[in-house]
Amino acid sequence: MKYIQSLQNPQVKQWKKLLTKKERDRSGTFLVEGFHLVEEALKQKEQVLEIIVSEKIGIPPSLDAGETPIFMVTEEISNVLAETETTQGIYAVCRQPNVNVGLDDAKTFLLIDAVQDPGNLGTMIRTADAAGIDAVIVGKGSVDIYNSKVLRSAQGSHFHLPIRRGDLHEWTSILKEKNIPVYGTALEGARAYTDISNNDTFALIVGNEGSGVNKDLLDNTTENLYIPIYGKSESLNVAVATGILLYYLKKPI
Amino acid sequence: MKYIQSLQNPQVKQWKKLLTKKERDRSGTFLVEGFHLVEEALKQKEQVLEIIVSEKIGIPPSLDAGETPIFMVTEEISNVLAETETTQGIYAVCRQPNVNVGLDDAKTFLLIDAVQDPGNLGTMIRTADAAGIDAVIVGKGSVDIYNSKVLRSAQGSHFHLPIRRGDLHEWTSILKEKNIPVYGTALEGARAYTDISNNDTFALIVGNEGSGVNKDLLDNTTENLYIPIYGKSESLNVAVATGILLYYLKKPI
Repeated sequence: MKYIQSLQNPQVKQWKKLLTKKERDRSGTFLVEGFHLVEEALKQKEQVLEIIVSEKIGIPPSLDAGETPIFMVTEEISNVLAETETTQGIYAVCRQPNVNVGLDDAKTFLLIDAVQDPGNLGTMIRTADAAGIDAVIVGKGSVDIYNSKVLRSAQGSHFHLPIRRGDLHEWTSILKEKNIPVYGTALEGARAYTDISNNDTFALIVGNEGSGVNKDLLDNTTENLYIPIYGKSESLNVAVATGILLYYLKKPI
Repeated sequence: MKYIQSLQNPQVKQWKKLLTKKERDRSGTFLVEGFHLVEEALKQKEQVLEIIVSEKIGIPPSLDAGETPIFMVTEEISNVLAETETTQGIYAVCRQPNVNVGLDDAKTFLLIDAVQDPGNLGTMIRTADAAGIDAVIVGKGSVDIYNSKVLRSAQGSHFHLPIRRGDLHEWTSILKEKNIPVYGTALEGARAYTDISNNDTFALIVGNEGSGVNKDLLDNTTENLYIPIYGKSESLNVAVATGILLYYLKKPI
């Protein structure tokens, strides 16, 4: 175990850079914060490069880090890395997974178009995981999948299923060629979701909080669905809508 | 229209106090922020006591305030009232609705036990509205229903259906006496929600983000339900779970 006390330490500077998408992309790594996420990451040890622990909390006795290097740091350094107000003082630097693994066999997909709120994106990833969806494809205009708030809201689901960035136009074509029905979500020119029966294989496209799924995408889907509004609200939150649709479309195991 | 320039103005001090639950309860009023919520409030003019507009934005031409008094204030005063980082500079002081109206005829209920995140509570209220639920009862230990972030996440649904605080034990007894089935949500000792058929009348209890619905409550329900987890996530977000269950249990109109 190494002990780092200086904010000027090059390792600290590198960790700090991981708070930016640019450096996460360049290095192919990302930083998770908190016990739960560090534990989830350590379930596959090869994906964890380094563990960082604040000297204020010390190494938790239950931490099963295997051969992973552990760095003890001052509270000051820990606070520089923290993205929560009351940090638990434990972090892991993780390798971005090879997102092509498992994609060839995937039968159910969630395609996410330009969802900007990190809490929404993380909750949608968590929901796709819970519903047993095989893969999540995140299109342009969405918040970064390794943003700290996305990671936190997803509660570890980043380590459970392939999540990758991709061009949703291309994915729609690829999936349709494979005879996987692609359902868009729209308020107009769409069928009630309850008209569709559940299925072993499908892709669902959900979209931006304000403007919904891009029109060009909707023009190329197999079918577009809407969720009826029985009361007076104008719409549903996108993560809630995703949950209703995925749990309806997915064939119970 | 009155013009207020001083932060020391008693009216400004009173508005500022509405940022606290204590003063909202004492005065029976609450403050909403932003065009959308002010417009939703003005759909029933008698519930709006005052409108506050920052001189920086001026009165929007589309604003249909009727006889409601409008106060123009400095940007400084507006910023004191703002709970968002980029405020739209428009507010309304609203009367807390008489929450007993409509309750006698209500057939579908959402009961919320100790949900602490204001974004979750607001999204759940919005979801109940969308699903056409007749009333929302919020139990002890939950964040205040008139908290600014709850209001924002609910996107106006506070003005669409009765939302009231209440003792969920008492409500469970009352509803069961009326032959309304009360469904709890639990991870253990529960049936898959898909075993239940949809119904014209029901109450659903959902609970705290970490610990779920209180055990004493679960012991007194008609039946407890769970949502199967098909993947590797441990649970669903409570607002997403609420959406899945309400849209499943609710009989389409």
